[in-house]
Amino acid sequence: MTIFTPATSANLGPGFDSLGLALKLYNEVSITEQKISSINIIGEGSDKIALKKNNTFVNIFNETIASLNGKSLNYKFNFVNNIPFSRGLGSSSSVIVGAIAAAYYIAGFKVERSVILNKALQYENHPDNISPAVWGGFTVNIVSGDSVFTQRTDIDSNLKAVVVIPDEPMNTKQSRGKLPANYTMSECVSNLSHAAYLSSCFIKKDYDNLRLASIDKMHEECRMSALPELFRVKEVAYANGSLMSTLSGSGSSFLNLTYDDRAQALAQALQSEFSKFRVVILDIDNDGFNIKS
Amino acid sequence: MTIFTPATSANLGPGFDSLGLALKLYNEVSITEQKISSINIIGEGSDKIALKKNNTFVNIFNETIASLNGKSLNYKFNFVNNIPFSRGLGSSSSVIVGAIAAAYYIAGFKVERSVILNKALQYENHPDNISPAVWGGFTVNIVSGDSVFTQRTDIDSNLKAVVVIPDEPMNTKQSRGKLPANYTMSECVSNLSHAAYLSSCFIKKDYDNLRLASIDKMHEECRMSALPELFRVKEVAYANGSLMSTLSGSGSSFLNLTYDDRAQALAQALQSEFSKFRVVILDIDNDGFNIKS
Repeated sequence: MTIFTPATSANLGPGFDSLGLALKLYNEVSITEQKISSINIIGEGSDKIALKKNNTFVNIFNETIASLNGKSLNYKFNFVNNIPFSRGLGSSSSVIVGAIAAAYYIAGFKVERSVILNKALQYENHPDNISPAVWGGFTVNIVSGDSVFTQRTDIDSNLKAVVVIPDEPMNTKQSRGKLPANYTMSECVSNLSHAAYLSSCFIKKDYDNLRLASIDKMHEECRMSALPELFRVKEVAYANGSLMSTLSGSGSSFLNLTYDDRAQALAQALQSEFSKFRVVILDIDNDGFNIKS
Repeated sequence: MTIFTPATSANLGPGFDSLGLALKLYNEVSITEQKISSINIIGEGSDKIALKKNNTFVNIFNETIASLNGKSLNYKFNFVNNIPFSRGLGSSSSVIVGAIAAAYYIAGFKVERSVILNKALQYENHPDNISPAVWGGFTVNIVSGDSVFTQRTDIDSNLKAVVVIPDEPMNTKQSRGKLPANYTMSECVSNLSHAAYLSSCFIKKDYDNLRLASIDKMHEECRMSALPELFRVKEVAYANGSLMSTLSGSGSSFLNLTYDDRAQALAQALQSEFSKFRVVILDIDNDGFNIKS
């Protein structure tokens, strides 16, 4: 079997730890039973020997399989890693969700998305990347007890993501450590009202109001100051037809959404100004992880 | 002309200063030109002489008329006040919105709802009551500069409001003064995620998830502690078929939403336990203020 798990962009401005969407950029893992375990990696991480010795996907996959049927067999894992590491594009969540879903499938259990999502929450206690990796589209998430509750909606195919991927990674934990411990009532009201408004824009497909909706007062500028060129990325994006430009997750990538017919021009404008960053045009994924037998 | 302006219920749990809905309970004001000004009040406030001497509706109406056409004529105002004062049902917002809209109409200007709403923001700097009084239905509001931006959605007619109206008023300013100045990151994330989820529930008509969605960590319990019976109101409401039970605005009223076929039983259960409070069943207003010539 092969499992494809999408990249994701979380927070989306005001939706700190709650909102996220999925992108058509996939980590692909093929798993076959074999006498001796083996790991093969193409793409991101292929040069890292540590990833063959202690592989998070394999660890979570084995734990999950063992918890489901008590068996411990050997497998050959072929990874095609397309999602960059530590760039705020949900690479860790893709690994967690992919490993759990693959384990359910191979153990012969029904792969129910809500079950996979709640298992994933045990490994990643914020739902905003794991949820779109599971459901696709735009997702609003709350955590209650040990469960994630999601409202999801499809995003129109005429919306494209133009993603700017810096060469420098950002570490989520370090990045989170720099954030304030408390927020004023006014900051809090700003984020909750904008998060609700942004969600309405996505659900009602009112994409023209995304820019107004995507203002954040909790984390974005604080995190962007670790890589100040991102302020200029936002400016250039808005000057060139971006509908919404937000730090992707905890960074370092920047997500810009725009209409189909403007994506190429926006990507070119960004690439010409930021020649050392990667700029890619991605479609939105409305399906979440996908298993092929 | 006669203007009808609906009662409103704001905050709706997590949507502090942002979310609100309109109820089919109207303040009605008839205005006719007359040689000498006069004020007649039926209903709420009819026993208050001060309201005839210094009437907020009349003051705002006159200011608005003067700003529009420079004229200062005399009018006879007949008020039928159905919205209780200082009970968290948007009585002040009804006055502000009604006065401005009536002034535009009588001055011969086009009554554009977005214009009326932005004018109203000058008198009431939180949008969560004035917006549903203008637009009707469920509204998500953000303030940017001097303007309110709203995403509105109709609420199905099979949803009813069962409103518990205590005999004691709550003063909004005093009530706000008791709230914390700061919130933790976790409180902030809870409210923004729930506000976004609640908005999705209303827009997608997923009313069965309203209870889960309506949890607040910013203001509700702090305000309810001024009238501790409200904690029991919430319990009784949820035990008797309420879909969502939240403090209405800054209180003292409590809003309970339920399906049509359960409204009567819910109202009875609440009335029998809280005999000294008024319990009323109201439809949702999906239109906002309404002018009859």
